[in-house]
Amino acid sequence: MCRWLAYSGDEIFLEDLLFKPEHSLVEQSQHATEAKVATNGDGFGVGWYGQQEEPGLYREIMPAWNDCNLRHLARQIKSSHFFAHVRASTGTATSRANCHPFAYENWMGMHNGQVGGYEQLRRPLEAHISDCHYLNRMGTTDSEALFYMLFCLGLEENPVKAICRMVSTVETLQKEKEITAPFRCTMAITDGKRLFSLRHASDSYAPSLYWQKQEGRLVVVSEPLSVDRTGWNKVPESHVLISEGSEVLDIVSIQ
Amino acid sequence: MCRWLAYSGDEIFLEDLLFKPEHSLVEQSQHATEAKVATNGDGFGVGWYGQQEEPGLYREIMPAWNDCNLRHLARQIKSSHFFAHVRASTGTATSRANCHPFAYENWMGMHNGQVGGYEQLRRPLEAHISDCHYLNRMGTTDSEALFYMLFCLGLEENPVKAICRMVSTVETLQKEKEITAPFRCTMAITDGKRLFSLRHASDSYAPSLYWQKQEGRLVVVSEPLSVDRTGWNKVPESHVLISEGSEVLDIVSIQ
Amino acid sequence: MCRWLAYSGDEIFLEDLLFKPEHSLVEQSQHATEAKVATNGDGFGVGWYGQQEEPGLYREIMPAWNDCNLRHLARQIKSSHFFAHVRASTGTATSRANCHPFAYENWMGMHNGQVGGYEQLRRPLEAHISDCHYLNRMGTTDSEALFYMLFCLGLEENPVKAICRMVSTVETLQKEKEITAPFRCTMAITDGKRLFSLRHASDSYAPSLYWQKQEGRLVVVSEPLSVDRTGWNKVPESHVLISEGSEVLDIVSIQ
Amino acid sequence: MCRWLAYSGDEIFLEDLLFKPEHSLVEQSQHATEAKVATNGDGFGVGWYGQQEEPGLYREIMPAWNDCNLRHLARQIKSSHFFAHVRASTGTATSRANCHPFAYENWMGMHNGQVGGYEQLRRPLEAHISDCHYLNRMGTTDSEALFYMLFCLGLEENPVKAICRMVSTVETLQKEKEITAPFRCTMAITDGKRLFSLRHASDSYAPSLYWQKQEGRLVVVSEPLSVDRTGWNKVPESHVLISEGSEVLDIVSIQ
Repeated sequence: MCRWLAYSGDEIFLEDLLFKPEHSLVEQSQHATEAKVATNGDGFGVGWYGQQEEPGLYREIMPAWNDCNLRHLARQIKSSHFFAHVRASTGTATSRANCHPFAYENWMGMHNGQVGGYEQLRRPLEAHISDCHYLNRMGTTDSEALFYMLFCLGLEENPVKAICRMVSTVETLQKEKEITAPFRCTMAITDGKRLFSLRHASDSYAPSLYWQKQEGRLVVVSEPLSVDRTGWNKVPESHVLISEGSEVLDIVSIQ
Repeated sequence: MCRWLAYSGDEIFLEDLLFKPEHSLVEQSQHATEAKVATNGDGFGVGWYGQQEEPGLYREIMPAWNDCNLRHLARQIKSSHFFAHVRASTGTATSRANCHPFAYENWMGMHNGQVGGYEQLRRPLEAHISDCHYLNRMGTTDSEALFYMLFCLGLEENPVKAICRMVSTVETLQKEKEITAPFRCTMAITDGKRLFSLRHASDSYAPSLYWQKQEGRLVVVSEPLSVDRTGWNKVPESHVLISEGSEVLDIVSIQ
Repeated sequence: MCRWLAYSGDEIFLEDLLFKPEHSLVEQSQHATEAKVATNGDGFGVGWYGQQEEPGLYREIMPAWNDCNLRHLARQIKSSHFFAHVRASTGTATSRANCHPFAYENWMGMHNGQVGGYEQLRRPLEAHISDCHYLNRMGTTDSEALFYMLFCLGLEENPVKAICRMVSTVETLQKEKEITAPFRCTMAITDGKRLFSLRHASDSYAPSLYWQKQEGRLVVVSEPLSVDRTGWNKVPESHVLISEGSEVLDIVSIQ
Repeated sequence: MCRWLAYSGDEIFLEDLLFKPEHSLVEQSQHATEAKVATNGDGFGVGWYGQQEEPGLYREIMPAWNDCNLRHLARQIKSSHFFAHVRASTGTATSRANCHPFAYENWMGMHNGQVGGYEQLRRPLEAHISDCHYLNRMGTTDSEALFYMLFCLGLEENPVKAICRMVSTVETLQKEKEITAPFRCTMAITDGKRLFSLRHASDSYAPSLYWQKQEGRLVVVSEPLSVDRTGWNKVPESHVLISEGSEVLDIVSIQ
């Protein structure tokens, strides 16, 4: 299980969300309160849209809390749309390629959760990645496999539909293999403009996911950045929050 | 604050203490129970006596819990005398040079605790390191400074006396600088044969330190390796436990 | 292209071959003379048989020449059978999982060379890995794929036959995809006892591979460890050198 | 010996100098042509002025040529004033703290060369660092010591005079200790506006240093970024090139 954060809206420094809030994402890397484990120390990553059409990535295998480079970058880099992720491995190795977010052209994605029975499902899931995207499969996580599967399932044409298909593909495979361990996930996907934030579980224990809208700013995050929960809304289970900039466009059921 | 472990006695695999016990040192790297912080993820190290007069060292900046090399080494390396340490930084950087243990010729040392006011004391403490040992000062921690200071204070002639002098040197410097933050520490020092395990605080809150003697085996450790505390003895505050192989030779007051 | 070394015979320290010879493997990591590139700085690894049936592994993403842990381990670890490898990436990332050697149970393998057109062949090559071995596929290199393919091709029953089949599988796939870039490789495979050292190219430019037999010691290596080449024999192209301990059992053609 | 680059002028992407030129700094990390060693693989760093008064830093222990984060950052970050450095250690460890550039408030510095007899001089050199700057001494290199010494020698009041004093301090100490190994260095120092580029040696073998002025751009660099040397000027030995933005203000002798 991991913790993540997606931001859209007015241009801000990454540190404004990664370091400054009382329960900032970097604070969550050591002291998460709504996850199975408090420590998310198996690498981290940030991805931001800035000067290029494709996002920039900085992913590292050290814990976020003691990476001096992250502190510098978060203080210098301004963005109107960025992702950040702190990782708690559910079994796969700590390598940069296994750190989120993942990026392909102008697209970016990140994930929290677990595909039950992934050891048995890795190969069938990878079979749903097209040859052209398989070249970019650099790690071994379920998260990265889900990201590249989406393209094959029509992400570029209809993101919500692709997300629905991804969920049903995973659950169908689990049934075929008679896997009873659940599929639980939150996921953020963006084309650089619109943001799709999924919260789902095959049982009824979806990982937590919140959003907060403030003047010119939208934050979607595994755990609220403040202890006071005023203004933080839960994304309903099995729904996708669709937003653009700081505007929530829709919250749609995937079922 | 950190967690450490020192072993002497019959030759065993490092994994027998680092991974196998229910509250093993690697388990303590994520879930310490008697430290200020539960997570000791700012690097780690092992040092062992084996085929050479000087110890071997393996120190790494990743958390111990997700380092696959450590798992391999702990499974292959057997030793009758070794140290292991998981680090929670009290401010200094995460680098190999700041990871414990430290070694010089046949000597090895490691530390848990904090020198109150270290920012002001770093330089005066380093002034107590001789030129020849200063060449081996590779990091910036208080721990490493204390280790090299000991040589100047007569470690090779009389280790207990050197330890006493080290403690009083630190506390004298703190008084001179009017530092009220305490000096709290546990420390293990060995010449490859005898082991000196210090527990001390300038106030009365010394970090925890336990020892356990079993048939042919002596373990000194920040926290017991089992949940059941039977057979685990506390090292008294301001005392040095002196041992050789699996035998406790003495427990002496440093005051 | 990379540089590697395999040793069998009397128990020696790893440093005796990794650091001490004038053109040691670590020296070759900076100044290789028979490779396309002089620098092999994209990670390294050692694997050795010691206290367990399966080998120990130490793989790291830093260059071998500046890794202080390697220096320590090579000075402490004695083995009668070990592999060492310094890596120059031909495109894939620098991660521990992409560093050689690879190990599975009592087996170990490492590789130098390149599968021409690997970008197109990665997926079809992986299709030759059985489900059970695919779980251990942790990286993205051609080298690791070739290693796990071997098991599917009968490695455990007849290693030389498996190696022949691996070569012909690769070359058949290259033909099918109309890839004209060659398949060039040297590879060392062992079950912990016998050593199989392949030198091959689909054109006639196989990477260099030498062996030297001395009293109680056999070394197979990409480049001789001494400037003086006396006593260093070339493994013929498209042949496998079969050895056990310090004895060469056979040198067989794979065609 | 290392290779470095300093840029001032119109805002450009870091990649325009780090990756794109035929003999770019990253290319020089593997294939330097005017240095004692061709490989500068012992870490690297970039420092740039952007959104804050103090520079941002990204320093890493991997070789520059295989760091995917650097590629991303260099493609996203634009700056009108930045430093970049690829390191070949002359003995000290590969750690982030030993990577250049070094930064203090709005100041930044980097270095190439060697203080002959540094093992003997480390301590006396450090004695020239004020207490307040000593807190920021995080590594063990001569380079970082020289940088912090400069503040004590009046850097903030008169940079050229401080540089002269630094040189004479080093050379005086060398004489006192009867060290015959030379002091050779190039160094870049900036307050974020003006750039001071020193080339000096105590014998007559100063490391190479070039500058090139083009429309709106000034580059100072260890080796020209192109094979064609047209437009590249050598900084004379024992001189400091003083520039601001793309303008060369003066080239002054330090003797």
